[in-house]
Amino acid sequence: MSAEGFFITFEGGEGSGKTTQINRLSRILTDNGRRVITTREPGGTSEGEKIRSLLVQREGGNWSAMAELLLLFAARTMHVEKIIRPALENGDIVISDRFTDSTRAYQGYGRGLEIDIVEQVNTLVLGDFKPDMTIILDVPPETGLGRSKRRLASEKFAEEGACEDRFEQLEIDFHRCLRQGFLEIAQSEPERCRIIDATDTEDNVAAQILALIKDRF
Amino acid sequence: MSAEGFFITFEGGEGSGKTTQINRLSRILTDNGRRVITTREPGGTSEGEKIRSLLVQREGGNWSAMAELLLLFAARTMHVEKIIRPALENGDIVISDRFTDSTRAYQGYGRGLEIDIVEQVNTLVLGDFKPDMTIILDVPPETGLGRSKRRLASEKFAEEGACEDRFEQLEIDFHRCLRQGFLEIAQSEPERCRIIDATDTEDNVAAQILALIKDRF
Repeated sequence: MSAEGFFITFEGGEGSGKTTQINRLSRILTDNGRRVITTREPGGTSEGEKIRSLLVQREGGNWSAMAELLLLFAARTMHVEKIIRPALENGDIVISDRFTDSTRAYQGYGRGLEIDIVEQVNTLVLGDFKPDMTIILDVPPETGLGRSKRRLASEKFAEEGACEDRFEQLEIDFHRCLRQGFLEIAQSEPERCRIIDATDTEDNVAAQILALIKDRF
Repeated sequence: MSAEGFFITFEGGEGSGKTTQINRLSRILTDNGRRVITTREPGGTSEGEKIRSLLVQREGGNWSAMAELLLLFAARTMHVEKIIRPALENGDIVISDRFTDSTRAYQGYGRGLEIDIVEQVNTLVLGDFKPDMTIILDVPPETGLGRSKRRLASEKFAEEGACEDRFEQLEIDFHRCLRQGFLEIAQSEPERCRIIDATDTEDNVAAQILALIKDRF
């Protein structure tokens, strides 16, 4: 492998196994003598983590999709300028758990903001900066949400009752939109994006990811 | 006065007397039977106040000008959609302490972000929504900063020492850029913006503002 910087993003719905696969890939690349930075969005900087807590932990209220878009790109410009770009210039491999495609999927396909608005803000803020490779871990919503629910249950946060059933259906519909979004993004940028069937075993998914990475280096 | 909604913004550097004049104007309009909503930026909604604390109280770190721009417009879209637009549709007068012109002045003229980027984000987020009237309270930086310093001193927050002198000079230079910004904004939109010499007495400034308002109704 050459010592040029390389920017990889992992995308996909909840329970698609992004964290596990990022950790496995990072370990293999490190074992092969590369410096690897793993990071995540929203977040990745102290500033970005403040925005994450506004959005993900729902501390800060009921944001419109447009406001979410702007908050996410505020975090993203800090992330790119303080962490990602300097690491790439230093020849490191950067692996981020989510990036702009998640905004396209969640705020665009999920919450109904015009994709063109997402693209305009992206161009204004990042210019032509984008990942060298994006790996989309694809699972049907029922499988992914089932996995993250099992994770929640094992952390004893799960709640029960009829209300949950209704919320669950809304959640499945929302995640169908996200999945559709990720698949359409991959179709529109086949050079950058690769879809991997993440219903396969953890080992098989890891092997597929490694094959893709070897191909590109 | 007719019972149509009317959106007034007050702009100007620190110590220009915006809060005092907004309170006086609001009282007079209320005495004349109008419903008046006074509000402020960044802030105005529970979500916007979270962003204010990230930016103004410096809780959240060292934001780039671009990130500040996006955070301010995230707060602004919530402010417009939840507070300002519904009040105007209800026939109320809305008076806001700062709005987009402050972003033009602080992030553009002050921090050096291209004005064109501010305008593009403004158009993307707000379309053609803008204040019906903007009152710019103009004071030389030395006067305004002196006033806000006296206010700070009376609140026992002032610090002393040689370091402060250097900071003060930087602050004066920064506020010269802001003032220049506000004056250029006023020149470019003479229909909307009115400059008032805020070095005059509080009563005289209030009388000038009232004359402007009477003119427009």
